[in-house]
Amino acid sequence: MFLREAVYHRPKQNFAYAADRQTLHLRVRAKRGDLVRADAIVGDKYAWERTAASVPMRLFASDELFDYWETAVVPPYRRLRYAFKLTAEDDTVYLTEKGFADRLAPNPDEFFDFPYINPVDVFAPPSWVKDAVFYQIFPERFANGDPSLDPEDVQPWGGEPTPRNFFGGDLKGVRDHLDHLERLGVNAIYFTPVFEATTNHKYDTTDYMKVDPHFGTNEDLKALVEECHGRGIRVVLDAVFNHAGKTFPPFVDVLEKGAESEYAGWFHVREFPLRIEDGIPTYETFAFEPIMPKLNTEHADVKKYLLDVARYWVEEIGIDGWRLDVANEVDHAFWREFRQTVKAANPEAYILGEIWHDSMMWLQGDQFDAVMNYPFTNAVLDFFAKDSIDAAGFANAIGGQLAAYPQTVTEAAFNLLDSHDTARLLTLCGGSEKRMKLAALFQLTYPGVPCIYYGDEVGMAGGGDPGCRGCMVWDEAGQNAGLLRFYSETIALRRTYGAFRDADIAFLQAERGSGTLVYERRGTDGSRFIVAMNAGVLPAEVSASADSRSWQDAYSGEP
Amino acid sequence: MFLREAVYHRPKQNFAYAADRQTLHLRVRAKRGDLVRADAIVGDKYAWERTAASVPMRLFASDELFDYWETAVVPPYRRLRYAFKLTAEDDTVYLTEKGFADRLAPNPDEFFDFPYINPVDVFAPPSWVKDAVFYQIFPERFANGDPSLDPEDVQPWGGEPTPRNFFGGDLKGVRDHLDHLERLGVNAIYFTPVFEATTNHKYDTTDYMKVDPHFGTNEDLKALVEECHGRGIRVVLDAVFNHAGKTFPPFVDVLEKGAESEYAGWFHVREFPLRIEDGIPTYETFAFEPIMPKLNTEHADVKKYLLDVARYWVEEIGIDGWRLDVANEVDHAFWREFRQTVKAANPEAYILGEIWHDSMMWLQGDQFDAVMNYPFTNAVLDFFAKDSIDAAGFANAIGGQLAAYPQTVTEAAFNLLDSHDTARLLTLCGGSEKRMKLAALFQLTYPGVPCIYYGDEVGMAGGGDPGCRGCMVWDEAGQNAGLLRFYSETIALRRTYGAFRDADIAFLQAERGSGTLVYERRGTDGSRFIVAMNAGVLPAEVSASADSRSWQDAYSGEP
Repeated sequence: MFLREAVYHRPKQNFAYAADRQTLHLRVRAKRGDLVRADAIVGDKYAWERTAASVPMRLFASDELFDYWETAVVPPYRRLRYAFKLTAEDDTVYLTEKGFADRLAPNPDEFFDFPYINPVDVFAPPSWVKDAVFYQIFPERFANGDPSLDPEDVQPWGGEPTPRNFFGGDLKGVRDHLDHLERLGVNAIYFTPVFEATTNHKYDTTDYMKVDPHFGTNEDLKALVEECHGRGIRVVLDAVFNHAGKTFPPFVDVLEKGAESEYAGWFHVREFPLRIEDGIPTYETFAFEPIMPKLNTEHADVKKYLLDVARYWVEEIGIDGWRLDVANEVDHAFWREFRQTVKAANPEAYILGEIWHDSMMWLQGDQFDAVMNYPFTNAVLDFFAKDSIDAAGFANAIGGQLAAYPQTVTEAAFNLLDSHDTARLLTLCGGSEKRMKLAALFQLTYPGVPCIYYGDEVGMAGGGDPGCRGCMVWDEAGQNAGLLRFYSETIALRRTYGAFRDADIAFLQAERGSGTLVYERRGTDGSRFIVAMNAGVLPAEVSASADSRSWQDAYSGEP
Repeated sequence: MFLREAVYHRPKQNFAYAADRQTLHLRVRAKRGDLVRADAIVGDKYAWERTAASVPMRLFASDELFDYWETAVVPPYRRLRYAFKLTAEDDTVYLTEKGFADRLAPNPDEFFDFPYINPVDVFAPPSWVKDAVFYQIFPERFANGDPSLDPEDVQPWGGEPTPRNFFGGDLKGVRDHLDHLERLGVNAIYFTPVFEATTNHKYDTTDYMKVDPHFGTNEDLKALVEECHGRGIRVVLDAVFNHAGKTFPPFVDVLEKGAESEYAGWFHVREFPLRIEDGIPTYETFAFEPIMPKLNTEHADVKKYLLDVARYWVEEIGIDGWRLDVANEVDHAFWREFRQTVKAANPEAYILGEIWHDSMMWLQGDQFDAVMNYPFTNAVLDFFAKDSIDAAGFANAIGGQLAAYPQTVTEAAFNLLDSHDTARLLTLCGGSEKRMKLAALFQLTYPGVPCIYYGDEVGMAGGGDPGCRGCMVWDEAGQNAGLLRFYSETIALRRTYGAFRDADIAFLQAERGSGTLVYERRGTDGSRFIVAMNAGVLPAEVSASADSRSWQDAYSGEP
């Protein structure tokens, strides 16, 4: 007998989805350890007898409570009726849409149904994304390449970052240091906002059609993008469409004219005139931040304006995608139109939402290609940085994440370990370079798009905002050369071996109470890598059975 | 200790959704009988300390394995962070996005998140739908009002229906009999296809812009719609957009010219020239039916054509909605555009998909207002018609369905007991009028839109297609007057008392091995009804505790 209550399957989302235009992935969940075998009974609903087949499933992930079984099926006519045969030591039960049954019904009317693989509905991120290694740049703090653009009150490079000070970083600075990025091995940049705004972080946009004058001009950005492309580096900008800034002209107009403003409908105003009462604005904002009025993305004029913005930077400036700020507070309907607009301008543009929570509803093919994968971040930090979970807990957290999304989503997820919104990785690791390296090693050998926050690679530390937004250290004496070498070597490994980018991961050793983790990465090309690490405070001996004598050290190439 | 593996919650879909523009419904699942209490811990993510509250949940549905708890919350700022407190006899555990915990974290970062209620994303079927009682008409078999339109080989009214014969039903016939519909008390008609086609069922469209000449003209339909509206009856047509007919001019062109046809991209052709090999067309079709070539609804010209069709009949002819044939084999992207087109023409149009299986992915606000609720059909038939499940099994099936969808979806679901695609209800009941009445009584006292298949109300019988497509019996001598009275009285009850249309249902008696069912229907206006029925073969005594002396017989009005 196995536990019926633990079994779960519901068509679509992460349990039955088109992995490509021909292939369906089917998954079923059961209590951990309950099943010795699972099979999918599949066929075409209009030709059942001729097409019915039983397909074995594999246990592809586990978390604390559950095992997840999966198989891939290519339906002969793009449609699939299916059931599951679940086998425990002493029990075999069939699962259909109608529930459990001891024997299979003679016809598949009450089986689960995947009605049709329609290409337009298939989740399909740009092909380059799976192979990308991102580098996040906070432009005001990366490099000051043109002091003539500096704000009036600019501080000397390398000073203490505060919420409001400026250090003069600009686009020219980025261009001057592209060699550093090439040497590091990254092939994509995510820039936090570059449009005109009043703050150093630029999340309070004044003009969505103009590069901030302290950073440069639209032409400067275009030239930077072109140079990046020449070096094989893609460029993604930050789209702050949830809210504008207090200097955004339509908002200024509403501030001045109230309900009479022609832009009154562009915002969510609870009460005119706009004001702040007991710390709460009478208009909706990001959080309760008065300088960030929420845009009414259901309003036709607002939609047109923002979609024109989305199109302009892709089409005219040549950027390769958008990172969407506070993406989950904007309506789904807007993002669907946004996707159509952006993909029409460049089908290979990457659409990356900022969502810190469960994101399945944005990752079904009609909205985003990926989200910033903070659940991944948290699991890695809990294990490698904070030592607050053991190897088993970590493997369970990762297993749960693999199961929570389609494989295609996992392979395109944006796996960051820190950002401008968190403390820096080295600081989160309590200053331990060893822990930091293990965390980064996991990140760089895990499916999904790794992103390195500028400066982490040279050993920069820093707490939460504003501490994490310090000036990039360019003086080699202040850089950690060993860490930089580690990053470039590990990025090179990832970019060399497809197995580190493919989805298949198996935890070979992840025990309760242990800090020792051993996992195998398997490539669709048949290659296999074993990664062993000890995140504990004690030395540990790792043993993993390698079933062949042909294993090599991936770093050195030696046996 | 309660069973952790049985607990389920994932944001959005049927577990956390906007019931209207202000209100969120939160649900959580647990093993049946495990919890004595459940609470939602809720608050605003940016003002947690000031807004946090604990809200008790109620057990609103159960199925064989699980209990489902629900509560409604009005977030102060349209966004909600939440967790659940689950209380068993001897165990209290908190559930957050991160899993189970013995105590609640001090901040809600790892709680579940409903980021924002954006009105455009809220599932909101037309307001009239909840109060509708539908009547399905198969036009070729309802009434022959204008013999001059008859096909050449028309058969005498009342003959044996075959897959290919004609009896001359037409729009004039419907118009002649609107009094019957008014007396019956229905206030909406769903017509199977009325556009020009070669078959009697018209599912093989020749011309989507033209009423079939054997039924009348576009003007006739417009006049019929206007007369229906004058009588308070709405009209829904059948949109057969998955596939066209073999006489559809673009398909004829492709048949003739092959890959050279300008319409070659309108269909899914595996191999030119179009032909049938071993019973399988070389082009995709509905099932393997050569006369029903599948339309390529991703092709821009096809989309434009079909969306023009969708708009024309709503805007020019005045229909109140579309029933979508084989809806789940058409791409989601098409249906999203279809919704925008139709709702722009008439925001109160009803969009009803034909889906026989789990339909959650089409019922999230961006596609359909409802689906044809065959899981409901099957449960009712299993219990009332076939006696293949007992009262407990029936209550579990219904409970599972209530839990599987948002309440707003349940209230707009199209609850049919038979159709042109199934045997007739009386025949499914083995000819038992008593069983048929109980099934219809349940249908008419259950949330969701009941639909009566033409002729059921006068006692027509008939097996699966073509048997269920017989000519409507208009001779009063051939009608079952008692059944007709039962239908009109029960429809009147439903239309009089909102409690029968509101979602709240509780099973008071539904035992294993029993055919006796007692349930209470509770209205949002505070009214309550108890329905007791015995679907078993033995007489049964029903006792239900009524907590007040003010109960009346709803049919007679007597105490």
